[in-house]
Amino acid sequence: MLGLGEMGSAIARAFLAHGYRTTVWNRTASKAVPLAEAGAVAAPTAAEAVAASPLVVMCLLDGAAVDEVLSALGDTVEGKVLVNLTSGSPAQARANERWANERGARYIDGKIMGDPPYVGTPNARFLFSGTAFEAHEETLSLLGSVSYHGEDAGAAAVEFLAQVAMGYELLLGFLHTLKVMRSEGADIIGFADRFAASLTAYQPLLTSIAKAIESREYPPDLGPLDVQAALMDDLISHRESLGVEAVRMRETRQLMERRIADGHGGQGFSSLFELLG
Amino acid sequence: MLGLGEMGSAIARAFLAHGYRTTVWNRTASKAVPLAEAGAVAAPTAAEAVAASPLVVMCLLDGAAVDEVLSALGDTVEGKVLVNLTSGSPAQARANERWANERGARYIDGKIMGDPPYVGTPNARFLFSGTAFEAHEETLSLLGSVSYHGEDAGAAAVEFLAQVAMGYELLLGFLHTLKVMRSEGADIIGFADRFAASLTAYQPLLTSIAKAIESREYPPDLGPLDVQAALMDDLISHRESLGVEAVRMRETRQLMERRIADGHGGQGFSSLFELLG
Ligand SMILES: NC(=O)c1ccc[n+]([C@@H]2O[C@H](COP(=O)([O-])OP(=O)(O)OC[C@H]3O[C@@H](n4cnc5c(N)ncnc54)[C@H](OP(=O)(O)O)[C@@H]3O)[C@@H](O)[C@H]2O)c1
Ligand SMILES: NC(=O)c1ccc[n+]([C@@H]2O[C@H](COP(=O)([O-])OP(=O)(O)OC[C@H]3O[C@@H](n4cnc5c(N)ncnc54)[C@H](OP(=O)(O)O)[C@@H]3O)[C@@H](O)[C@H]2O)c1
Repeated sequence: MLGLGEMGSAIARAFLAHGYRTTVWNRTASKAVPLAEAGAVAAPTAAEAVAASPLVVMCLLDGAAVDEVLSALGDTVEGKVLVNLTSGSPAQARANERWANERGARYIDGKIMGDPPYVGTPNARFLFSGTAFEAHEETLSLLGSVSYHGEDAGAAAVEFLAQVAMGYELLLGFLHTLKVMRSEGADIIGFADRFAASLTAYQPLLTSIAKAIESREYPPDLGPLDVQAALMDDLISHRESLGVEAVRMRETRQLMERRIADGHGGQGFSSLFELLG
Repeated sequence: MLGLGEMGSAIARAFLAHGYRTTVWNRTASKAVPLAEAGAVAAPTAAEAVAASPLVVMCLLDGAAVDEVLSALGDTVEGKVLVNLTSGSPAQARANERWANERGARYIDGKIMGDPPYVGTPNARFLFSGTAFEAHEETLSLLGSVSYHGEDAGAAAVEFLAQVAMGYELLLGFLHTLKVMRSEGADIIGFADRFAASLTAYQPLLTSIAKAIESREYPPDLGPLDVQAALMDDLISHRESLGVEAVRMRETRQLMERRIADGHGGQGFSSLFELLG
């Protein structure tokens, strides 16, 4: 196990808990101490850790850290299976796979969703991709609930970045909306609870929007655009009156106006997809 | 019932279905015909419809339509209870209440969430505010699930605009993310289903973010900002490589960088609230 931050340590502990002989390494050596106490072997260098095991799992801060550790490892990875659980892009995953293959190693890319304390339980979700996954599925399934996204090493990262992006869309929009509610003197915890309760109503809508986009037929979800658009000025001017940003509302209004001008005012929100860059 | 668009017609039908004597009016008279066939009395002018009943319900396109109909009504509203179910802002609701009170009428503001076919079922949600609500709660509860947001006539609109804004935040972000998935050759309906399934995981998070903001203690939800920020460049450059916009990602990165520079890299996402305008 290379990398013993919050996440790497939790992963090493999950392997130890299942009786795996586990060698650990971390740039800052002190983080290996509690793991050594828990039964791991602490290696003084990454290359020595790699030499100890057929399966090498990495979980570092970011792609730059991975690059640094991989170039220190160099040809020592020959014959190994590298599993990289560091967050990052599909391009990085594909480049890591090339790097590994050129050195006679196999490569599995993994992405983690969930907090470190959940590692080893179904609440930690691990997304995997790459051709070497199947042979190691059983071991990797010890870490949490596992899904496989395809042979393209970048596939797990594609799914991960999309899921994470949706999280930030939702949560940054939520912070701005809490600002609105705070400015209006409303109880923000009450609003959070009510909006949270309404989230399940979006579940079928998300699927029906994706289906509308696939079929390029756009039924009037959320009402026809003509009716939805009438509301956008109120939304925007309300936010302006409170000094709260309205970036997404302005963008939505503009897209709706263009669709309506093109004669599609009877279609639904999903039809805005046609106008995206 | 003033206004017989999709929503107004559904509301008139719900009253008729419960045996209420219902007089209807619509600017374009032809829309009253099917309701007259269903047992309503069609009035030739809005003022004549108002004269027929103690409770006057309006559901028009927008605030401009409401202004137009109200000024045609003028003093004929004296002694009536006006219930305005047209979407709009808290400022409009408060102005409508003043207008009604100055003419000896009472005013209830209402906002609708849900499609017209659901009116009369619990899947249509009606938000109400204003001092006259309680006396008419029983009648208005025929329309769907009803919630009361306070004596301030604008309170229902505050809640409504916040809920609607969150819908557009989520759904416009979703369209852009589907663009990413489409560009990556991924199955967008599969992604929609998986993201929909993950929505329930956000329910406790929304409440805990609101609580963090109330307490101004910001535990490392989604991991500490130091770790989250390391991912933002990957998110942004991935979208740039595909030509997909990244407005919210850039904003998130910038806010995270400022919080980290201020020494708060160990806090969570919720702490970005401190930086909002
Ligand atoms: N924490 C979460 O909630 C969470 C959730 C999902 C996914 N993840 C992902 O898991 C990965 C690790 O996160 P974490 O929470 O464990 O972060 P962390 O606690 O900050 O640990 C970062 C790790 O990366 C190492 N590192 C950083 N730069 C390095 C370099 N140049 N060379 C060698 N090692 C380097 C650190 O070593 P030192 O100890 O020497 O600094 C440490 O072991 C990230 O990609 C993160 O996005 C985390
Ligand atoms: N449809 C939905 O899914 C939905 C969901 C939630 C909330 N709502 C809200 O419900 C309200 C009505 O929506 P809807 O779906 O019924 O819209 P709609 O079918 O387009 O009907 C609009 C109504 O407003 C009337 N109107 C427009 N301008 C007018 C004016 N200047 N003077 C008099 N009447 C005027 C129209 O009369 P004409 O027939 O003469 O044009 C028609 O009766 C809107 O505020 C909407 O936001 C709708």
